Amino acid sequence: MAQALDTALDTISENQRAAREHAAAHDGDPGDRPRWPVVVLRTPKGWTGPHDVDGEPVAGTWRAHQVPLSEVRSDEGHREQLRAWLESYRAEELFGDDGAPTDAVLANRPRDERRMSANPRTNGGLVKKPLRLPDFRSHGVDVPRPGEQMHSPTSVFGDWLRDVVAANPETFRLFGPDEVASNRLQAVFDVTGRQLADGPREGDSHVRRDGRVMEVLSEHLCQGWLEGYLLTGRHGLFTSYEAFIHIVDSMVNQHAKWLKTTRQLAWRRPLASLNYLLSSHVWRQDHNGFSHQDPGFIDHVVTKKAEITRVYLPPDANTLLSTMDHVLRSEHYVNVVVAGKQQALDYLTVDEAVAHCTRGLGRWAWASNDDGVEPDVVIACAGDIPTQEALAATAVLRERLPELRVRFVNVVDLMRLQPPSEHPHGLADREYDALFTTDRPVLFAFHGYPTLVHRLTYRRNGHQNLHVRGFVEEGTTTTPFDMVHRNDLDRFRLVMDVIDRVPGLGVRHAGLRQEMADARLAARAHAYETGEDPEEISGFRWDPTL
Amino acid sequence: MAQALDTALDTISENQRAAREHAAAHDGDPGDRPRWPVVVLRTPKGWTGPHDVDGEPVAGTWRAHQVPLSEVRSDEGHREQLRAWLESYRAEELFGDDGAPTDAVLANRPRDERRMSANPRTNGGLVKKPLRLPDFRSHGVDVPRPGEQMHSPTSVFGDWLRDVVAANPETFRLFGPDEVASNRLQAVFDVTGRQLADGPREGDSHVRRDGRVMEVLSEHLCQGWLEGYLLTGRHGLFTSYEAFIHIVDSMVNQHAKWLKTTRQLAWRRPLASLNYLLSSHVWRQDHNGFSHQDPGFIDHVVTKKAEITRVYLPPDANTLLSTMDHVLRSEHYVNVVVAGKQQALDYLTVDEAVAHCTRGLGRWAWASNDDGVEPDVVIACAGDIPTQEALAATAVLRERLPELRVRFVNVVDLMRLQPPSEHPHGLADREYDALFTTDRPVLFAFHGYPTLVHRLTYRRNGHQNLHVRGFVEEGTTTTPFDMVHRNDLDRFRLVMDVIDRVPGLGVRHAGLRQEMADARLAARAHAYETGEDPEEISGFRWDPTL
Repeated sequence: MAQALDTALDTISENQRAAREHAAAHDGDPGDRPRWPVVVLRTPKGWTGPHDVDGEPVAGTWRAHQVPLSEVRSDEGHREQLRAWLESYRAEELFGDDGAPTDAVLANRPRDERRMSANPRTNGGLVKKPLRLPDFRSHGVDVPRPGEQMHSPTSVFGDWLRDVVAANPETFRLFGPDEVASNRLQAVFDVTGRQLADGPREGDSHVRRDGRVMEVLSEHLCQGWLEGYLLTGRHGLFTSYEAFIHIVDSMVNQHAKWLKTTRQLAWRRPLASLNYLLSSHVWRQDHNGFSHQDPGFIDHVVTKKAEITRVYLPPDANTLLSTMDHVLRSEHYVNVVVAGKQQALDYLTVDEAVAHCTRGLGRWAWASNDDGVEPDVVIACAGDIPTQEALAATAVLRERLPELRVRFVNVVDLMRLQPPSEHPHGLADREYDALFTTDRPVLFAFHGYPTLVHRLTYRRNGHQNLHVRGFVEEGTTTTPFDMVHRNDLDRFRLVMDVIDRVPGLGVRHAGLRQEMADARLAARAHAYETGEDPEEISGFRWDPTL
Repeated sequence: MAQALDTALDTISENQRAAREHAAAHDGDPGDRPRWPVVVLRTPKGWTGPHDVDGEPVAGTWRAHQVPLSEVRSDEGHREQLRAWLESYRAEELFGDDGAPTDAVLANRPRDERRMSANPRTNGGLVKKPLRLPDFRSHGVDVPRPGEQMHSPTSVFGDWLRDVVAANPETFRLFGPDEVASNRLQAVFDVTGRQLADGPREGDSHVRRDGRVMEVLSEHLCQGWLEGYLLTGRHGLFTSYEAFIHIVDSMVNQHAKWLKTTRQLAWRRPLASLNYLLSSHVWRQDHNGFSHQDPGFIDHVVTKKAEITRVYLPPDANTLLSTMDHVLRSEHYVNVVVAGKQQALDYLTVDEAVAHCTRGLGRWAWASNDDGVEPDVVIACAGDIPTQEALAATAVLRERLPELRVRFVNVVDLMRLQPPSEHPHGLADREYDALFTTDRPVLFAFHGYPTLVHRLTYRRNGHQNLHVRGFVEEGTTTTPFDMVHRNDLDRFRLVMDVIDRVPGLGVRHAGLRQEMADARLAARAHAYETGEDPEEISGFRWDPTL
């Protein structure tokens, strides 16, 4: 063993010397990748435990995975074997009569940084430094009027992310299962590449030995790499298709449990957060279909401890920028951000986005007509596509039922919905009551499964008036409008929901309700005939004269 | 290619001939396992698509994973390449001017059982036969009085499962990640073994070439095997530790989506259900700890379509038997059953268990004292440990507050809690209102995360009076009582909850409340000092004189 270690250490020294010499002579290039030594130590399972128990071999067999001596209380033979096993460690040579370690033990204990709790190799938070984050505001898109122009939110974020990668060449990595470009973050390849230890091969694109992008078509491997990287005190972001991040559910559980437990240990310094950016989400899987439609990762994450978990659903490009700036600064959380990569409407200027994200939710004045009065209905939304459908429904209501007082509320930080007793981000009850009212119908257009909103809000006043639309596991390869139609989240359905729920509207506006029912069927028929949504739906813009 | 197939088919024939001869001469033993031929066909990715696009190679490179010609609308060159590509299939030779297949095509189409929809290899439901299920009643345990004796539920089930395996030697398999014995199902090894294609090696236990138990320490592999086995028209059961089944979350998603979609295809016959028995559950991880404590798989499964998903929490041995008989008979569902392996109290005789499981939930008359009157409080429970704690709390209430009218309700079939509009098993509102009342406090002791019960019941009358206790992500390596204590699910806490919630009790019974607070702290101190729970807690039995 000693010889194997000596050989390995000598080889490492030699590799390092050769690389440094090569780098000195070749402008910093360390030359070909050396073969690092690997020491393989194989020991029998249960090596130091009882060799046989009750006549059956234990050490080196599958039986060593169980409790080897299970009848210690009742079986004198087992008790004797246990005694012999424990005595084999010769505790009397290690501890004095008073139970304290002997001087020989104390003289050999690790000191200072070699102690486990003080060693930065096992307590990465000790050496963690904040990321150098360039000002995201300069990457914000101009929004002359809300709901007029379009951008791809993840593309806009990708431009800023390129600057983040460039500003933190040794402390930040991007992880993804072959989806960095598909999720529109390819701007990072302007300043770095995908890392391949053996370097690029013919036909490779953006592949470098020193790349900061870790791409491999295995969510498990990405997750494991990122967890390990965070443990060294550095920072990272995992980008994935929304549906497939469930692959790492079990690994996220264990990391969240680790974060929860280590938060209670005073000596263990916080790590950078475990950050997810989920794009290519449930509502825009036009050419993939039902297998790619699952918004349930956020349902999974919110079962973990509230002080650890955060979920954000920025509705447009500028709110995504502000959200990502926040999560990359945060510590010791699991942050899940869901955002679209397709062209989507811009609603907020970058300054408005900062205010909105800092609040976590808020009323959009330009979409509401309840100034100074109690609203007749609250239209709430979370997520980019639900926000678009909720706004389009609001436009119909504002135009066709101008006497109806509508309050429009968008939620970015989902945990604001929980009471403060349940989550640190929870909105105070008075604030919640003021915003959502305690007695008016609230129609909530939600990115994920509707039950998640109910699960977060069931303690709130007026919960019996809350009606949530979201993904109800209806999907296929189809157009964007047909997806929201199938799941009853479309603008026309939302208008019908308002007519059904605001007292008095139903009887008077049966005509408008029927128009809406006909409109959604006509839109679907158009999609099935032409393969595309009608222009008046896909081309929706917010009318500034409303 | 033709030659490779010929060679493979010849080798298969030769292997079969040799095995049959050997079997004839050796009492049915087919001899050593032959090496079956494997044909490996490697083709470049995108082989038949455009070779180069815009000067970049596509076929055989990573670019073939994307849309190869993405600018067909705007780029004449792309359009021309698309035309050439599609024309390469020579559709004019396959279809006539009217668009119908030519006679040559029609003459070569598969007929009868060779059609994909009619081929039992792709439509296993066509050849599926029901399992031969021996009468589980004869395996039921005697229950002279409720809450007096104890059994390990999964052990009792294991004895019946042995008979199921024996009665269905070619159509049933048990799958598990090295946990069949740990989950106390080892009785199956009386009649079969773990399958190993190469047969047993020295030191192996219960390993056979023809074993019906598929054990491998990979939940992914077990899941994949079972899905494939079900697709052939046969039956299976996956047994796992509750916490680790999250490893297959993503695979379950896809199978559930497949079940949902194929249910809509008239020609596709239903398969046997995908059945899970989760044991070694969150509440009894005494020597494992926090990493093994996660009841959230049922949260995950209920996000899938209601007509596909079923969740059962049998509280004792006889209800587990009745539940498993039901799920093994069912078709085209994902059934999740959670049950304990440790010694637990028996509550219901086998006949009572059948009635209780058929109802899916019910009032336990012997634990209630609300005959003919409105209860002051409903104590509800689901899961073995919550049932035990709820009963122990009821015993305290019955003894110390005899004037309090308590209704005790146990839930086996969790989906009974949802309204019938949301799930086919949903209890009618009138029945729900009668059982749970619309205006009395309901205290629900739940196996999993409390939010799951709220998510299922938020539409029910009286939901604002429903208070749920369950796992709130507090755990460690500790005693059974300390686990329920940490999560506020213990009997003393439940009594305090009743005192806090039944109007008028709090002021009058501050003394009993304080006794309960002291009792839970004393029990915890005892566990920390001795490593075991106090005998009066671990030895709880239902007092028949109450």
